[in-house]
Amino acid sequence: MVKTTDNDVNLRLIEKINEVEKKYNKKFSNTQKILLTTDGSITAILDVLHGKIDLKTLKQHFEEATEKSASLVNVDLGDEVNYREIIMHKDEQPLIYAVSYIPLKRLTKEIKEDLVRADIPIGRILKKYNIESRREINLIQIEKASIKLKELYNTEEDFLTRDYTIIKDGEILMWIKEFFPINYFTEI
Amino acid sequence: MVKTTDNDVNLRLIEKINEVEKKYNKKFSNTQKILLTTDGSITAILDVLHGKIDLKTLKQHFEEATEKSASLVNVDLGDEVNYREIIMHKDEQPLIYAVSYIPLKRLTKEIKEDLVRADIPIGRILKKYNIESRREINLIQIEKASIKLKELYNTEEDFLTRDYTIIKDGEILMWIKEFFPINYFTEI
Repeated sequence: MVKTTDNDVNLRLIEKINEVEKKYNKKFSNTQKILLTTDGSITAILDVLHGKIDLKTLKQHFEEATEKSASLVNVDLGDEVNYREIIMHKDEQPLIYAVSYIPLKRLTKEIKEDLVRADIPIGRILKKYNIESRREINLIQIEKASIKLKELYNTEEDFLTRDYTIIKDGEILMWIKEFFPINYFTEI
Repeated sequence: MVKTTDNDVNLRLIEKINEVEKKYNKKFSNTQKILLTTDGSITAILDVLHGKIDLKTLKQHFEEATEKSASLVNVDLGDEVNYREIIMHKDEQPLIYAVSYIPLKRLTKEIKEDLVRADIPIGRILKKYNIESRREINLIQIEKASIKLKELYNTEEDFLTRDYTIIKDGEILMWIKEFFPINYFTEI
């Protein structure tokens, strides 16, 4: 391994993709690689690839942070967090499924209302309010489909997943995990 | 035209791409569309697609803002701005050429030093210092190659270009214009 220098900050991402490709003996398409590693808006990418996409909220509620969710968004156990399960789709075609935890105490009133009231993707909410932030990609991996994912996508395929945090004012504003079937986004 | 609602914030980007495709009678690849519209790091995308890429600085100096550059980065005429012309490349292959203006007064000492001293892409500099920001895409278009671009890429092709600003603390931190030949990034 070479020493990490200023110019190596994206090396971790390349290595993650290479490892997953190797482990699974797959070559990912450009689009798959970009979807798994970009620090930009996924909604914006899907919009441009498919024409404006829609979001359906499958579950959405506030709950007390468990040990797991508290650690994902760096709040205290029992702090209130928003849990959301959504699917981004184009007409009848499911595209990307995502779960998210968002600590209530870091939300403005406007963002909270948008999260609760309507089927608006997080990328569009951030853009609407001109939120300045950065994204940190955590794990990129392949997972077996849950029963829910099998039903949503009507597939037996494995899923590509990644999770990341959106950071604002040095604190975690959101933790998001995204999923799509491994045979999606394989064409130009 | 439909009325713009909360859910339409990416519609402008889709329309821009559609217009350029129509005007030129071309269908862009997914990768081309993403490179032209993403609000994420271009360096990170090129790194993942090509393996870690390198940057060569072609020109770099501080100068007094002209009418044009002052307006691009929203500073006063005569304010000091950094001008940079770079090419991102993988080994001998040129990938993306970019010019940028960065107002000196909005730079920290560390970022200024990184800009001046070494061939570090802006995306990596932002990541290194955990800069929270947002990007606003302006024009996406096709342009005839300048003599310099023809020589750099050894091509007679037209170029796809876009320009955008990186905004931090509500002010323009950088204005960037990127170029690549229209026959680049056409494969998966």
